[in-house]
Amino acid sequence: MAEALGFELVEFGEAFARGRFPVTDRVRQPFGIVHGGAYAAMGETLASAATHLAVMGNGELAMGQSNHTSFLRPVSGGSVHAEARVRHRGRTSWVWEVDFTDDEGRLCALTRVTMAVRPAPAQSSDSST
Amino acid sequence: MAEALGFELVEFGEAFARGRFPVTDRVRQPFGIVHGGAYAAMGETLASAATHLAVMGNGELAMGQSNHTSFLRPVSGGSVHAEARVRHRGRTSWVWEVDFTDDEGRLCALTRVTMAVRPAPAQSSDSST
Amino acid sequence: MAEALGFELVEFGEAFARGRFPVTDRVRQPFGIVHGGAYAAMGETLASAATHLAVMGNGELAMGQSNHTSFLRPVSGGSVHAEARVRHRGRTSWVWEVDFTDDEGRLCALTRVTMAVRPAPAQSSDSST
Amino acid sequence: MAEALGFELVEFGEAFARGRFPVTDRVRQPFGIVHGGAYAAMGETLASAATHLAVMGNGELAMGQSNHTSFLRPVSGGSVHAEARVRHRGRTSWVWEVDFTDDEGRLCALTRVTMAVRPAPAQSSDSST
Repeated sequence: MAEALGFELVEFGEAFARGRFPVTDRVRQPFGIVHGGAYAAMGETLASAATHLAVMGNGELAMGQSNHTSFLRPVSGGSVHAEARVRHRGRTSWVWEVDFTDDEGRLCALTRVTMAVRPAPAQSSDSST
Repeated sequence: MAEALGFELVEFGEAFARGRFPVTDRVRQPFGIVHGGAYAAMGETLASAATHLAVMGNGELAMGQSNHTSFLRPVSGGSVHAEARVRHRGRTSWVWEVDFTDDEGRLCALTRVTMAVRPAPAQSSDSST
Repeated sequence: MAEALGFELVEFGEAFARGRFPVTDRVRQPFGIVHGGAYAAMGETLASAATHLAVMGNGELAMGQSNHTSFLRPVSGGSVHAEARVRHRGRTSWVWEVDFTDDEGRLCALTRVTMAVRPAPAQSSDSST
Repeated sequence: MAEALGFELVEFGEAFARGRFPVTDRVRQPFGIVHGGAYAAMGETLASAATHLAVMGNGELAMGQSNHTSFLRPVSGGSVHAEARVRHRGRTSWVWEVDFTDDEGRLCALTRVTMAVRPAPAQSSDSST
């Protein structure tokens, strides 16, 4: 999905991640501004990938549990820039906050993502959290 | 964006909306399950379109203000079905709740969307809420 | 805290819980309407107690993980009535949705509560989720 | 309600607010830790009061619209310290994020509060947002 929407993942770490996406029709809604789902998807992508990279070495996996995005300012062109900071690294859940800005650095959206961290199963594709 | 992700909008009304999307790679994350952003985007699409259709006749427009999605059960194939119900129709904000189910009818995700309803501007493409 | 705010817990089950509170100064904010925190607290109380009762027999405990409350209509008198329905009962998390109504049955607020379900520790009062 | 729970409001500004509360039985749940509703209520109190003070000079009032609190670490004694930062000051909505820490400075909870800003009515005590 990240590819379908043109997301670029710029940087990953245990506590920080950055990405961006150009404002093309793939992320616009019918009125020409960025679709709310694009912010949610980018925040989810950054938090998921960064948590996963951090915990997989421990035999754990990370699954998105909750994503709450607030839309503050419409963006119709240029790029959207996302910066994710980890706020909590617990044994069973990590929490990230993501700020989205436009090319002028103005805050456009906020996301809070909660990741569930669980032991990696032998094999189970249908488990619920 | 709804097209880029393969969303189908099935039904719209003032108080109810339905959609679905097939589980293709466009909506999957790297582990093969539906990306959290896909649920958020579908919920946003249904709530936005339905609210907009309801208020545009009054010279108003609807903008997404907040989207909170909880992921309950991973889905890796088939289709995801979304049913949105309006919970509040105020003068300046509408609130929708969206249930997502898989082909067996099991609940997979929940979204609450808050839409801001405002007088349609003469012309202003860069206003913030 | 439930006592400090005058909460009455009316009914509890594995999938449903009900409570109410009279609108006194203990739950009002300075403008005379019910404080947003009162809805959040009541939703949290119902979901926590109901989940706890359901899982304690399995040697598990339930801890609040997230509470998202939307305020739809101010209430200044009478009572507030809360109905909580479980939406998800997973192995490690339960999700509840709570509707709040006034004495005329009008919807005043909505809460979604996520409870973390974990094995009850031998003894650990300072663990994080 | 702030008094019933023992909240102390330490500092207010257009972009920042601080408060604290001692961990007494008024804010505890039955297991002896701080009730999730206490964090939600404190966050709501800070955001509401600070927004209200900022906009009332313009003939506007502020009403809580949404409160999303994540509980990260249980607290059983000492005090809880809250710091609220404004993230968005729009014409019709303000968004605050609140960090809660214990006496050792450890992050215990996070709140995002959305305030609706509206023209102050001549007199209307039963309006919905």
